[in-house]
Amino acid sequence: MDIRRLSTTQPDFQAQLAALTNWDDGATHAVESAVSDILKRVRSEGDQALLYYSKTLDNYPVDTVAQLEVSQARCQAALEALDPADREALEQAAARVRDYHQHQRTTSWQREESDGTVLGQQVTPLERVGIYVPGGKAAYPSSVLMNAIPADVAGVGEIVMVAPAPGGEISPMVLAAAAVARVDRLFLLGGAHAIAALAYGTKTVPAVDKIVGPGNAYVAEAKRRVFGHVGIDMVAGPSEILVICDGQTDPEWTAMDLFSQAEHDEDARALLVCPEARYLDDVQATMERLLPQMERSEIIRESLSRRGALICVRDLAEAAEVANAIAPEHLELSVIEPERLAARIHHAGAIFLGRYTPEAIGDYCAGPSHVLPTSRTARFASPLGVYDFQKVTSLIHCSEAGADSLSRIAARLAYAEGLTAHARSAEYRQK
Amino acid sequence: MDIRRLSTTQPDFQAQLAALTNWDDGATHAVESAVSDILKRVRSEGDQALLYYSKTLDNYPVDTVAQLEVSQARCQAALEALDPADREALEQAAARVRDYHQHQRTTSWQREESDGTVLGQQVTPLERVGIYVPGGKAAYPSSVLMNAIPADVAGVGEIVMVAPAPGGEISPMVLAAAAVARVDRLFLLGGAHAIAALAYGTKTVPAVDKIVGPGNAYVAEAKRRVFGHVGIDMVAGPSEILVICDGQTDPEWTAMDLFSQAEHDEDARALLVCPEARYLDDVQATMERLLPQMERSEIIRESLSRRGALICVRDLAEAAEVANAIAPEHLELSVIEPERLAARIHHAGAIFLGRYTPEAIGDYCAGPSHVLPTSRTARFASPLGVYDFQKVTSLIHCSEAGADSLSRIAARLAYAEGLTAHARSAEYRQK
Repeated sequence: MDIRRLSTTQPDFQAQLAALTNWDDGATHAVESAVSDILKRVRSEGDQALLYYSKTLDNYPVDTVAQLEVSQARCQAALEALDPADREALEQAAARVRDYHQHQRTTSWQREESDGTVLGQQVTPLERVGIYVPGGKAAYPSSVLMNAIPADVAGVGEIVMVAPAPGGEISPMVLAAAAVARVDRLFLLGGAHAIAALAYGTKTVPAVDKIVGPGNAYVAEAKRRVFGHVGIDMVAGPSEILVICDGQTDPEWTAMDLFSQAEHDEDARALLVCPEARYLDDVQATMERLLPQMERSEIIRESLSRRGALICVRDLAEAAEVANAIAPEHLELSVIEPERLAARIHHAGAIFLGRYTPEAIGDYCAGPSHVLPTSRTARFASPLGVYDFQKVTSLIHCSEAGADSLSRIAARLAYAEGLTAHARSAEYRQK
Repeated sequence: MDIRRLSTTQPDFQAQLAALTNWDDGATHAVESAVSDILKRVRSEGDQALLYYSKTLDNYPVDTVAQLEVSQARCQAALEALDPADREALEQAAARVRDYHQHQRTTSWQREESDGTVLGQQVTPLERVGIYVPGGKAAYPSSVLMNAIPADVAGVGEIVMVAPAPGGEISPMVLAAAAVARVDRLFLLGGAHAIAALAYGTKTVPAVDKIVGPGNAYVAEAKRRVFGHVGIDMVAGPSEILVICDGQTDPEWTAMDLFSQAEHDEDARALLVCPEARYLDDVQATMERLLPQMERSEIIRESLSRRGALICVRDLAEAAEVANAIAPEHLELSVIEPERLAARIHHAGAIFLGRYTPEAIGDYCAGPSHVLPTSRTARFASPLGVYDFQKVTSLIHCSEAGADSLSRIAARLAYAEGLTAHARSAEYRQK
């Protein structure tokens, strides 16, 4: 099978790594232009535009947008109709995700100074958020849980989910997940027009305050465009994994971990870093052997050939440097002392420590959200979390004594900035 | 003086309020196109492009970009040369801002489950951030403190500040503030090309991971464009204040508080909400009387006429509703029991409680950052804070026992999603 082999001892390693990990996050002109038209049309025509796009883009002609809404009763019925083992798995996963996120809540605080002045911050949940759950090629009930539960834990007033349903078809498991995750309203809408409906609102679809969740290039561009009018989580790129292995993990396990990332889509990126060239050979041979058994073998083959790599390093310290340069969405530390290695990692969306923690467990049920920063954005961005659905308001309450001393500082600086009204407003509060 | 009077008893009040508070956050086509060119040119030509724009846009021709850098020694010298009272005010403000933000740090946590599985989150500071400090019409040393100190408290490795210096002139107070706030590097660069330099890096200006700070329309559009490649804080609109008064505050105080917002620029918005029509009359007459004394009277007159309003409400509960609809950047509660009223506020950047807390004190020295969400974005956004300069990495470490039970849940859900490699990757970890 065709997969790149790199070594840090190659003189052009940095350039090769950069070429491999480069992902142009800009939309093409065609996407930009199409999205711009869709946003304008939904903003001005509302429901009429949604009916048009549902028919032309989602192949789902309906008479009213209300027909695109799925009732909570239907979601609940889908949950009750599930195979009991599927239902149990979904509910166990949801319980764990909920439990993890309980620990993420930020709380309000206030502190009083000696002169009676009080400073603090008030933390409140967002009122209404939109959640985009991709569909199309595959249905992802896990994405419903991973997006909606952090919002629910934050105390969001209303969670509005949208999901594309080409031809009106939607996975019962996705509906069931919406019931488990306490989604308030669900519309069968996908693509840029769904983002537009959430951002601007229509007669039928309520406008939200923030939109989260990954989508295709059109969805990403639409989110980028409506940012400012509403909040967004991030602009997601293709999914990626970096596995650092000390060469002591069963090659089958490692091969399958790489496959699990590569099977997402042709742009997904799976990288293995190891100090043992022999182990890289073993994993490559194992992948050759296992690939024909895989249901999504063509996608795996394509993404490994286009974006995968087996990278030989001098030692694990150098492996950590490679990981920091890549700032991977998922980082597996398949080594004997994973905590020691984790201490060297500065940039990663999620770290999976030890041989018994494959990314797949995190994707479904460990607890943290699987919505993670991609394409090196882990340098500055965080996993989707409760903090995405809370906001802070600063609180300042000056006592008369506090106002007297603070207004002197403020007035002095205001005069220096030439802002006289600021200075005089402060001076009125002096004794 | 010309200022709009509104009353919630008017049948078209909602429409009038919406018209008044509407702010089109989209850039004009001319701005979009200019910014797109600047970003491309800086990305491809680096320092050469910066020299070109410094000459043509900033009227500051230099031979090398290194000449645009201001040394820490020069900032320290500017601090030492300040009038001692200015220096004391700057240092007192900085100390208070630093103290407030110490309380905002998020910490890492881990928890172990009964089967030995460990979940947690690792919180780390960003490595390098860029801070945009506007200049031009006015110099804002306070903005240096309010942007840089939260980054410094977060533990950011390197703080790179840019500030426009038309003709090479920069306020000594801004340089002094950079020294007080522990800015690591400072370049005299403004506008979209400064944002491009920070986002992409050039030979001389280092690429950063996140860019924060307000700027003009070109800066805002440039930040929006580079978002994803780097992090940004928000896309800032014009500054705004909403004062809720019970009619018992000295009208001069209230008039000057409104002026302090209106003096920023012609797009700034100052609104007063009160249940007493007579008090609104008093404040209006006071503004008439005080306006000629103000140094920036023309700007104040223009912004109050274009964007200001005196709004009569039925009671304070209705005043809170108006505030929530507007989600103001700054909200003064100039009333007898401000805490009671604050409990009704869901959306505001910062709340200034009581008659002795004018916005000006918060602008300079109370403690919280004065970089706040504008244009109704307080529905979903927070003040600039330490959390903007920290990021989270999720941690998952399964024990063998934990992996056995979790992999069963994961595999079940993965099969349901048609992701076989995920399922098999999990199954390898079953006993």
